[in-house]
Amino acid sequence: VTDRSDAARLDEVSPLGHTRERFVVPEGVVYLDGNSLGALPVRVAERLGQVVAEEWGEGLIRSWNALPSGAGRWMELSRRVAARIAPLVGADADDVHVGDSTSVSLFKTMVAAARLRPDRRVLVVEPSTFPTDGYVASGVADLLGLELRWCDPADPLAAVDDDVALLSLTHVDFRTGAMYDLPAVTAGAQARRALVQWDLCHSAGAVPVDLAASGADLAVGCTYKYLNGGPGSPAFTWVSPRLQAEARQPITGWMGHASPFAMARDYEPAAGIRHWASGTPPVLALSALDCALEVFADLTMAQVRQASLSLTDLFIRLLDERLPDLDIVTPREHERRGSQVSFRHAQAYGVVQALIARGVIGDFRQIGDDDSSSSGIARFGFAPLYVRHVDVYDAVEHLEAVLAGEEYADPAYSTRNAVT
Amino acid sequence: VTDRSDAARLDEVSPLGHTRERFVVPEGVVYLDGNSLGALPVRVAERLGQVVAEEWGEGLIRSWNALPSGAGRWMELSRRVAARIAPLVGADADDVHVGDSTSVSLFKTMVAAARLRPDRRVLVVEPSTFPTDGYVASGVADLLGLELRWCDPADPLAAVDDDVALLSLTHVDFRTGAMYDLPAVTAGAQARRALVQWDLCHSAGAVPVDLAASGADLAVGCTYKYLNGGPGSPAFTWVSPRLQAEARQPITGWMGHASPFAMARDYEPAAGIRHWASGTPPVLALSALDCALEVFADLTMAQVRQASLSLTDLFIRLLDERLPDLDIVTPREHERRGSQVSFRHAQAYGVVQALIARGVIGDFRQIGDDDSSSSGIARFGFAPLYVRHVDVYDAVEHLEAVLAGEEYADPAYSTRNAVT
Repeated sequence: VTDRSDAARLDEVSPLGHTRERFVVPEGVVYLDGNSLGALPVRVAERLGQVVAEEWGEGLIRSWNALPSGAGRWMELSRRVAARIAPLVGADADDVHVGDSTSVSLFKTMVAAARLRPDRRVLVVEPSTFPTDGYVASGVADLLGLELRWCDPADPLAAVDDDVALLSLTHVDFRTGAMYDLPAVTAGAQARRALVQWDLCHSAGAVPVDLAASGADLAVGCTYKYLNGGPGSPAFTWVSPRLQAEARQPITGWMGHASPFAMARDYEPAAGIRHWASGTPPVLALSALDCALEVFADLTMAQVRQASLSLTDLFIRLLDERLPDLDIVTPREHERRGSQVSFRHAQAYGVVQALIARGVIGDFRQIGDDDSSSSGIARFGFAPLYVRHVDVYDAVEHLEAVLAGEEYADPAYSTRNAVT
Repeated sequence: VTDRSDAARLDEVSPLGHTRERFVVPEGVVYLDGNSLGALPVRVAERLGQVVAEEWGEGLIRSWNALPSGAGRWMELSRRVAARIAPLVGADADDVHVGDSTSVSLFKTMVAAARLRPDRRVLVVEPSTFPTDGYVASGVADLLGLELRWCDPADPLAAVDDDVALLSLTHVDFRTGAMYDLPAVTAGAQARRALVQWDLCHSAGAVPVDLAASGADLAVGCTYKYLNGGPGSPAFTWVSPRLQAEARQPITGWMGHASPFAMARDYEPAAGIRHWASGTPPVLALSALDCALEVFADLTMAQVRQASLSLTDLFIRLLDERLPDLDIVTPREHERRGSQVSFRHAQAYGVVQALIARGVIGDFRQIGDDDSSSSGIARFGFAPLYVRHVDVYDAVEHLEAVLAGEEYADPAYSTRNAVT
C-alpha cells in the first residue's frame, strides 16, 4: 500500500466492504474510537422512535405483553437480546443474561464465584485491567472478607494457587490491545480448581470468542463498544451451563424470581440464567441494543476477524514504514492482538487532541498516577463493520502531519479534559 | 358530583388542569395505571431523537464532554437528573444518586446499612411490601449472614429491637395504597438505633415526601411510575448527609471512583453521593428521564397532592354511592392514602380485563400463592398530572357496567396473562 487507491482496493475485497452503510458515520470524521463507543446503526433512531411512540406512548402498560401489531413483548426483550449476542461469543442463548451495567454484572459473577469456592479466599485480578474490574473485585473482597491478589499480566497463572477462588482477566487489554489465549489460560487455572472469568468488553463483536468450547466458567461483556448498543447500554453475562444449577447471584430482585407476578413473599430463583435478572429491565436501552445487533445478523465472526486484522495489519505496516520510531505497544502476532493498535508517546494526550482537531478520533489513556500528565497511550480502535482501509490510510497521513508539525504541543492541549 | 359535567367543573378548578397536555394519552383510554408505568411526556420523543442523532450519531465519544451546541455533557447527566428529582422528595441534589435499577439500588443501600451497624444482625421488612424489597433483603441477609425478620405491616416498630440494623419499609403500599406516617415511623425506629430506609416507588411524584426534614437514613425510589421516566428507567437513591462520610455501597465501579479517568489500579471512593455510582451511566434512559422530569418544573408537590386527593376522593365517593358493597381496601383518611384506590374482588382479574376491554386501564395484583386465581386486588392509580375528574367519572360508569353485566366472567379472562 503506497497510496490511497491501494487502500481503496483493499476495501473492495473486504468481506465487510458493504456493512459501513449500516451506520451513521459523521462527515469528515475518521472514527477510531469504536472500542470506547460504537457508532450509531442507521436503524436505531427509527426503532427507538417506534418504541417510544407506539409501545410506551400508545401501548403503555400493555406493551409488557404483545400489542396487536406484534410490538411490545417487553417481558421477553432481555431474552431476545441475549439470543442475538450469544452466537457472537460462542454461547447458547440460554446461558446469557443481558440487563445490568458491566460493573454490576462483574459484581454478580464475582460474588457467585466466591460462593462456588467457599474453601478458597483469594480473588486474582490483573493490575493493568480496565479499572472497574479491579475496583469491583476489591469491593467484593471487602464485603466477603476475601483477599485481592494482583497477578503479573504476562503470567497470570503464576498467581493461581490452591487458595484462589477466581481468576478474573480481561481478554483484550483496553490500553495495549494485547489478547490472552483464552482457552489455554482457562485450562491452566482450572487445573488448579480456580474458576475463570473473562471480561469480553474489548472482544465481543470484534474478536471471535468461543465461550462454550473454551470451557470457561463466567464471562461479562460490554455492548456499547464493538456491539454498538449506544452510550451506557446494558452489559451481558455468560454463566457456564455446568455451573448454573449451583451458581447464585446476590441481587435477588423480582425479575429473577421463578414467578415474578405471583408477588410471593419469599424469593425463589427462576431456573437457569433467568435468575440472573434483578429489577425491571431497561426497555429503552434494550430496544436500542436489540436493533443495533441486527447489523451482525448475516455476518460471521470469522469475517469480522478477517476484516479487523486486515485493518490493524495495515495500520501497523504504515506506521512502521512512515514513523519507525513510534513505540507501538500492541502485539504484532495476530493471535495476541485484539482490534486496536496503541502507541506510547510522551505527548500522547496532545497527539490525540491534535488528531481529533483534524477529524481523526482516537483516545488517550493515562499510565501511572499523574492526572495532569500528557504522557501515556494513544489508542486507536478498528471497528471492522464501519472502519475502512482508506480511513486507516488517512489516519496515518494525519498522524504523520501532527508529529512532523509538533501540533501536539499546542497550548490548548495543556489541560486535560475529563474524557479523551 | 351527580353527572359528568360536575366532574368537568372539578377539572376546571384543579391546580393541575393544564398539565394533561404535557402527556400523550391515547385516544379512547382512561389510564389509571400510571402507578405501574407513567404516561409518555410529549417532549421525550423529540429529545431522545436528538440524543440519538446528534449526541450519539454525530457527537460520538465527544458527547461525554459538551458539544459545540451545548448538548452532550453525559459525564454530568446523572447529576442533572438528580437535581430534578431532589426537590420532589425534599432532598438536596448532593444527596441523590440516579442510575441503577430499583433492585440494585435497594441492594446497595441495604448492604451499606448493614455495614453501618456491624453489631446488629437483623434486617426488618414488611411481608406485604413490593416483593423485590423482601427478595433483595433476603439476598443481602444470605450474603452477609444476617437474619431477615418480617414485621406486622400494621405495627412495624414492634419488630424493631436492639438487634435490628435496618427497618426497610415501602412508604405507600403497592396493593392497597396505604401510606405510612414516614416521620413518625422513622423517629420510632431511630429511637432504638435502627436505621430506616424508605422505598418511595409509589410516592415520588404523587405524594409529598420531605426526606431531609424527616430525619430518615436512606431512601430508594422508582422513576417510571409517577415520575414518567419510561419503561425500566433508572431508580434514585437518597443517602442522608449525616451518613455519607461513613456509608459505603458495595459495587465499587469506575464511575464512583474519585478520579475515574486516572484509571488508577486502586479504588478510591469519590466524595459524597458520587461514590454511589458504579458503571457507565445509561445515557439514553437518563436522557429520557431528564426530559420527562421537566413536566414538574413549575409545579409544587402541594399542588400535586391537592389534585391527587381530589381524584381519589371522588373515586371513593362515587364507588360508595353506586357500588356500596365493594370491598375498598384503601384507607379513607387522607393522611394514610397514597395516590391509588384498590378493592378486593373474587373475580378481580376478570374485572380488570373487562375494564381494559372498555379502555379503562388499571391492573390486577394477586394475593396469596395461587398463580391461576382470579381473586385479588383491582388497583387504580391516579397520576394527577394527566388523570382528570372526568376520567374518574367515566371509570366508575364502566366499572358499574362491568359488575352489573358480570363481564368479568368472560371465558377469555379465565387464563391470566403475565402482566395486568
